[in-house]
Amino acid sequence: MILARQEMGEVLRTVRLRKGHTLRQVAGRASVALGYLSEVERGQKEASSEILASVADALDTPLSVIYREVGDRLAVHERFDSIPDTVPDDLIADVRRPVGAR
Amino acid sequence: MILARQEMGEVLRTVRLRKGHTLRQVAGRASVALGYLSEVERGQKEASSEILASVADALDTPLSVIYREVGDRLAVHERFDSIPDTVPDDLIADVRRPVGAR
Repeated sequence: MILARQEMGEVLRTVRLRKGHTLRQVAGRASVALGYLSEVERGQKEASSEILASVADALDTPLSVIYREVGDRLAVHERFDSIPDTVPDDLIADVRRPVGAR
Repeated sequence: MILARQEMGEVLRTVRLRKGHTLRQVAGRASVALGYLSEVERGQKEASSEILASVADALDTPLSVIYREVGDRLAVHERFDSIPDTVPDDLIADVRRPVGAR
């Protein structure tokens, strides 16, 4: 299962590093605890909409840009997950069957 | 402040209605309580990433599509919020000043 909070965390971290800010700077500006922001970036905590809005503000980045980037990242995962197996299931089953039973 | 959960709720409701599903059907398929899904759609509750993933699945809609639509809706709000006042602040202050003080 693809978890949106992991992609959200990656996006927030990527935007922060692109802007050359430390966790401490962004946490301070957004008035959130540093440890909490770090957990959000690592996809371990869901950020509420209020916190996302103030982190986006602290990053000088529209929330729309952040959501679209999350959407793009999710799309990459979904595309990857939908690549079909190139070997048919019954052929795999056949190969796995003990030699005497084939 | 634009709250992402309100846009997320609108998107989930729009997709559900577009597909002709009832709240009950989607809640059942996603294994979430009907009242809870209704609150999420009305932007009153934050849905966890796990719940979003199963609701998206119940709606046969990739999570990436949902996040991109939320991003698009947020962008419309952000653009609207950034429309400049057409009347300069000092002119407004001037008009509001009592006649004798102008």
